[in-house]
Amino acid sequence: MIRFFAEAQDISTGTIKLSADDSKHIRTLRLRPDEFFIVCDGTGSDYICKLGERSDGTYAKIIEKQNSPGEPSVVCRVFIAYSKGDRLDHAVQKSVELGANEIVLFESERCVAVPKDVPKKISRLQRIALEAAKQSGRGIDPPVSAGGHFKEILNDAINNSSLSILFYELEDRLHIKDVLQQHFSQSNGHPDHKTKPISLITGPEGGFEPHEAELAKSKGSKIVSLGPRVLRSETAPVVALAAIMYQTGNL
Amino acid sequence: MIRFFAEAQDISTGTIKLSADDSKHIRTLRLRPDEFFIVCDGTGSDYICKLGERSDGTYAKIIEKQNSPGEPSVVCRVFIAYSKGDRLDHAVQKSVELGANEIVLFESERCVAVPKDVPKKISRLQRIALEAAKQSGRGIDPPVSAGGHFKEILNDAINNSSLSILFYELEDRLHIKDVLQQHFSQSNGHPDHKTKPISLITGPEGGFEPHEAELAKSKGSKIVSLGPRVLRSETAPVVALAAIMYQTGNL
Repeated sequence: MIRFFAEAQDISTGTIKLSADDSKHIRTLRLRPDEFFIVCDGTGSDYICKLGERSDGTYAKIIEKQNSPGEPSVVCRVFIAYSKGDRLDHAVQKSVELGANEIVLFESERCVAVPKDVPKKISRLQRIALEAAKQSGRGIDPPVSAGGHFKEILNDAINNSSLSILFYELEDRLHIKDVLQQHFSQSNGHPDHKTKPISLITGPEGGFEPHEAELAKSKGSKIVSLGPRVLRSETAPVVALAAIMYQTGNL
Repeated sequence: MIRFFAEAQDISTGTIKLSADDSKHIRTLRLRPDEFFIVCDGTGSDYICKLGERSDGTYAKIIEKQNSPGEPSVVCRVFIAYSKGDRLDHAVQKSVELGANEIVLFESERCVAVPKDVPKKISRLQRIALEAAKQSGRGIDPPVSAGGHFKEILNDAINNSSLSILFYELEDRLHIKDVLQQHFSQSNGHPDHKTKPISLITGPEGGFEPHEAELAKSKGSKIVSLGPRVLRSETAPVVALAAIMYQTGNL
C-alpha cells in the first residue's frame, strides 16, 4: 500500500491534512476514492486512509489506526563515516530498509571524501532516507545528521546506548555473533534493551586507524569483526544491521 | 594485501605466471620486489608471492601456500531475478562480498528489465564479481550465469541443494531464522551441510507472482519472509546471505 508521512499537527480526529507534495503525488497516482493508502505519523503509528477532498487541499479520511508493523523491536543508531561517490546514498537507503532508527555521518582520519557542503549532503541523504522509509514500510522517517569528527560522535554513540560496536577490519577475534548473543542474553528481563539504543560505528573506505579503534575501546565500545571477508564501506552498516535484526527476530 | 586470480595451468612449482592484465596492473601499482601480494588459484588456495621477472612476462615467486581465509564454510548459490538499472550490479557485488559461491540470473513473470543482450550483461556482471572477489579477499571467483526462466532455475536450485529458500514478500509466518536454525540443527553430524549448497532465490522489483511461490513450494522449496519491512530487490539477496553467514559463524 502506498505510504506517506504526516506532521503531528496535521493529524486531527478523523482526518489528516496532506502536504502539498503528497497531494500532488496522489493526483499523479490517480488514486480512486475507494482505494486505501497509509499515512504514518512518523512515531510508529499508521493510519489506513481513503481520499477526501476539501476546498483548502487534499485530506485523508482516517479509516483505522494501527502500530506500524515495519518498526523493529530494537533501536539502532548507525554512525557512518563519510565515503566517496554514491556509497553514502546506498548505505543510508539500505540502513533505513533494514530498520535503522537514526543515521549520523562523521569524519574520521582516513576519510577521503568529506563533503564541501555538509548541510546540502545531509539534506540529500535525508530525502533518500524518507523515500526508503516510505518504500520499505517504516513507521518513522529516520533522522540523518552530521555528527562532526569521530571523537565527537564517539561519546554520543557510547554514552547513549546499551551497547556500542565499532567494526574494525583488523579485529579477528571478537565476532558480532558473540557480542550480540551475549548482549541479548544479559539483557533478558531488562526492559531497557528494547528501548535503549545499540550504536553501530562503521569506517570509511580505508577503515579506522588503529588509534581510533583503541580510543573507542578505551571509552567502552566493543571492537568487532564482520568476518574474514573485507566488506566495502557501504556494505558494512547493512550487514551489521542485518545481523542485529536476525539475532533479535526482526527479520 | 593486493590479490590476483590465476588459472590452474599457470601455477607451477615455485612460480605462477600472471595474466597480461595482472602484469600490467602490477606495473601500474609499482610493486617493489620485496612486497608481498596474493595470487589465488580460484579454488580456495592463496599463494603469498613476491614479484619475479622473466623474459616472457611477469611471474610471481611463491613464498607460501595457505587456504583462503575468505571462503565461508557454507556454500550458497544465489538465484537473482533480472531487475532495472544498476541494481543487479549492486546485488552481484555485495553477494560476492558476503560469500556467495555462485550467482545465477533468471527471468520471472514480473521482471520488467530482461537485458536485450544477455551474454553481454553476464560478462559485465562476471567482471563485477571478479573485482568484488579480489577486493573482499575471496578464495574463488564466483561464476555468474544466465539460468533462463524461473521454471528452469527452480529445478536446479531445489535439486542441487540441501535447502532451497525462495523469499516472498507476502509470506509472513515462516521467518529465515526459523528455517536456518532448523536446518543447521538437523544437519548436525551430517557432513553434507558443509558441502551441499543452500539455494537462495530472490525476485524482481515487483516480487514473485503467487503462482510462482506456489510452484516453488510444491517442488520442495521453503517460502520465507525477510521481515515486515519491504526490502528492495538488490537488498534481499545481501540480507539473506548475511543471515546465513551470521547463523553459521561466518561473519
